[in-house]
Amino acid sequence: MAEQDIDRLVQLLAKLPGLGPRSARRAVLQLLKRRESLLQPLAAALADAGERVRACTTCGNLDTIDPCAICADPRRDSSQLCIVEDVADLWALERTASFKGKYHVLGGTLSALDGIGPDDLNIPVLIARATDNPDAEVILATSATVDGQTTAHYIADRLHEHGIKVSGLAHGVPVGGELDFLDDGTIAAAIRDRRPV
Amino acid sequence: MAEQDIDRLVQLLAKLPGLGPRSARRAVLQLLKRRESLLQPLAAALADAGERVRACTTCGNLDTIDPCAICADPRRDSSQLCIVEDVADLWALERTASFKGKYHVLGGTLSALDGIGPDDLNIPVLIARATDNPDAEVILATSATVDGQTTAHYIADRLHEHGIKVSGLAHGVPVGGELDFLDDGTIAAAIRDRRPV
Repeated sequence: MAEQDIDRLVQLLAKLPGLGPRSARRAVLQLLKRRESLLQPLAAALADAGERVRACTTCGNLDTIDPCAICADPRRDSSQLCIVEDVADLWALERTASFKGKYHVLGGTLSALDGIGPDDLNIPVLIARATDNPDAEVILATSATVDGQTTAHYIADRLHEHGIKVSGLAHGVPVGGELDFLDDGTIAAAIRDRRPV
Repeated sequence: MAEQDIDRLVQLLAKLPGLGPRSARRAVLQLLKRRESLLQPLAAALADAGERVRACTTCGNLDTIDPCAICADPRRDSSQLCIVEDVADLWALERTASFKGKYHVLGGTLSALDGIGPDDLNIPVLIARATDNPDAEVILATSATVDGQTTAHYIADRLHEHGIKVSGLAHGVPVGGELDFLDDGTIAAAIRDRRPV
């Protein structure tokens, strides 16, 4: 492994989440074995994405067009605005095909520890978007973690000042989940928010 | 995730060993967030490796020069030739820095099931290399699997015809291994090949 080019490729691949040095080496060997079918298309796709993919200036989604395909789609409901922490969360919601409104990506959560305040996130743009469209419902879909919920509370407070309707994701038993393996908070929430059957 | 460029990148990355569709998505987001420090260098390193890295025509190792750095190194001992299945095995041996001879990469194992015969592997070149240098010792370092051992036996038979000295890796207890967790074959081999202390 004295070889510089290969080493450099291994080091770069090992920085990806999910790959360590050992699996990065395996990946590099696989890439060099499947030069035509994998290495060259991947190099081209990376260069292409690096050049063309940009953050949407309206919502923060990643796309090759600005505004992004979701913001530009006239069939999507402008009266619902779903707030997510990250583009990964937006993708997760899109995969379910159960939300037909628009999104707003914060780019993280508020965090006193890491010194991340409202101006470091996409929050001022969000307040502007919501107040421009005061009849819309804002759905807070930040993570159910301490930071995620703090961020949701802060945004809800700011939006309530402008009389905007705000809702949050339901808490409860995950589909397929067994009560025995769930934490107390989730079970308590599921009991509290029980529904008529 | 309507976005074509990003989808294509996710699909290509998901083909790497160790990455599934979900971790490939996380990797793509990471790449797009760290454009300057990760995406662009990775695209460049891939393109570079795709163009410059070639298999050594002598031993089958991957390098940007041919013969490779190991074959070309005059300090390495030409009287020892270590036979490995794959470039990954060569790298593993090189990491230990305990072998100072030269290598020969077979590119796989004999396999009746998959229809892989001696001519599909790098075996004819190996026989030619060994007979050109009949005083050298050939060390069989194929895997201790059925296919690996079949391949080792076949090569040993062919080399014995030419009166070449052949050896194989030692079997025994792995360093740090506990007897209780080892298979019977390994323990039997360790007892059989016991050493004076």
